[in-house]
Amino acid sequence: MCAPSVLAAVWAGLTRRDAMHYLAGMYVAGRLVANAEASQPPPVRSPGPPPTDAPRRSLPADHIVDLTHTLSPRFPIWPGNEPIVLKVKSQLQRDGFYANRWDISEHHGTHLDAPAHAAADGATVEKIDPRHLVVPLAVVDIRERVARDPDTAVTIDDLQRWEKRHGPLPAGCALAVCSGWDAKAIDAKAFLGSDASGTLHFPGFSPRAVEFLLHERQVVGLIVDTLSIDIGPSRDFPVHKLWLGAGKWAVECAARLDQVPPVGATVFVGAPKVATASGGPIRLLALW
Amino acid sequence: MCAPSVLAAVWAGLTRRDAMHYLAGMYVAGRLVANAEASQPPPVRSPGPPPTDAPRRSLPADHIVDLTHTLSPRFPIWPGNEPIVLKVKSQLQRDGFYANRWDISEHHGTHLDAPAHAAADGATVEKIDPRHLVVPLAVVDIRERVARDPDTAVTIDDLQRWEKRHGPLPAGCALAVCSGWDAKAIDAKAFLGSDASGTLHFPGFSPRAVEFLLHERQVVGLIVDTLSIDIGPSRDFPVHKLWLGAGKWAVECAARLDQVPPVGATVFVGAPKVATASGGPIRLLALW
Repeated sequence: MCAPSVLAAVWAGLTRRDAMHYLAGMYVAGRLVANAEASQPPPVRSPGPPPTDAPRRSLPADHIVDLTHTLSPRFPIWPGNEPIVLKVKSQLQRDGFYANRWDISEHHGTHLDAPAHAAADGATVEKIDPRHLVVPLAVVDIRERVARDPDTAVTIDDLQRWEKRHGPLPAGCALAVCSGWDAKAIDAKAFLGSDASGTLHFPGFSPRAVEFLLHERQVVGLIVDTLSIDIGPSRDFPVHKLWLGAGKWAVECAARLDQVPPVGATVFVGAPKVATASGGPIRLLALW
Repeated sequence: MCAPSVLAAVWAGLTRRDAMHYLAGMYVAGRLVANAEASQPPPVRSPGPPPTDAPRRSLPADHIVDLTHTLSPRFPIWPGNEPIVLKVKSQLQRDGFYANRWDISEHHGTHLDAPAHAAADGATVEKIDPRHLVVPLAVVDIRERVARDPDTAVTIDDLQRWEKRHGPLPAGCALAVCSGWDAKAIDAKAFLGSDASGTLHFPGFSPRAVEFLLHERQVVGLIVDTLSIDIGPSRDFPVHKLWLGAGKWAVECAARLDQVPPVGATVFVGAPKVATASGGPIRLLALW
């Protein structure tokens, strides 16, 4: 994908720690991809242990950050959709146990869009390969630009500038955009960015950047801290159509992306395994 | 907790691979606990990187197994509760996107019981410390005994026999019981084990084993492949009351515990972060 001279220049610009992070991410990604290719049928009942002297692959695990917002009826939701409703079904004093039912949209709170959300032949959420739910995390920070232009979109330039600093996007990674928008989630009007005409305003991905990722890189999922991977004013949602149409997942309404490093973390996507669902509320954790 | 001579005897019985697994698990658990103690306020906004020559903690990551059942209206549920209902709210051809709402019990499918499910002052699901959702996994296999007695319960003897073979339960681990019951989930009657009188039959934990774990070991969660951490015939659910009452979590209806090693894996508990919930459907993944 890159001429050796380009790679050398990229590596020369990395600190030793960045390089170690990057290698760890690549190592794990490569191993998971290799396992995926080697074992097309579902995991065998009793996978044999690796030979005792084979090198063991590992994930850095010094830190954990919860990238999930707390979901309540007050959490912002796409216009026209209804927030979660909890109904108490069982009370501790009366019934011995406390329990509720939820009436909940698949796209409320920190949630996942499965390919089927926007693609006729796309996988529903329970069919996403679990190996694509534990992957290296790359974080592109556009907060500075968002402060000037809330409708700004991630461009190919942003991605190339990131790679110049941190190395190529790890194979099999999830790519997150830290726009700082999660701080607005306490105020639905600010989070949607609605103007007088009802048009929404918040940042997202540009279709060209997403085409670049689809054709030039191996990224399994996109993560944004806004309500949509398309920018707020979008009318036809080209990024959803391109990305989900290519069989990839997207996470919307992530939190605290400013607390994870640009490269070197692993993200766990705790997607619900509900049959035929278009997505659903998730638990999203970063570890590094 | 153990005299040096006991520890030496335990170590002598371990293979090199078991010992490495165990050390890795302890290392990570120790680090997470140390971090938890060191950072009582929520994680700082921009945690400083560790010094470049500090040893890096890591999780083994050669294998991934999905411990989650697919949740559909056919999945068994506790008697008297109603299964999940999906309502299509948006259709791809008509509306541009496919999406549903769910009407769902917090205790359907592979799910988590938060302390508040059985304890008046217990944490609701969103308040569980995320550091307790990515932890070493220990698996006790009781399949042989279950074949003879479906109402069998895990005893202190089972735990001590396990420790003799695999070393002390890792500090901060989740303890899973592999009873083989997950294979029955395709048939609700078999999974509940109801007899003519309506009494349920399936294995679980004994109250004494749970008291031993609470007082003698540091375990953050229990995982079972049946509908309850109490055995099927239980009328008063002492294990729920003891365990959740002590502020711990439990996972019920896990799958494929026979596919993970007794020690050395990490479990990721993708619990939903729904405010005031008593639990909820989860994604449960094991990595090692």
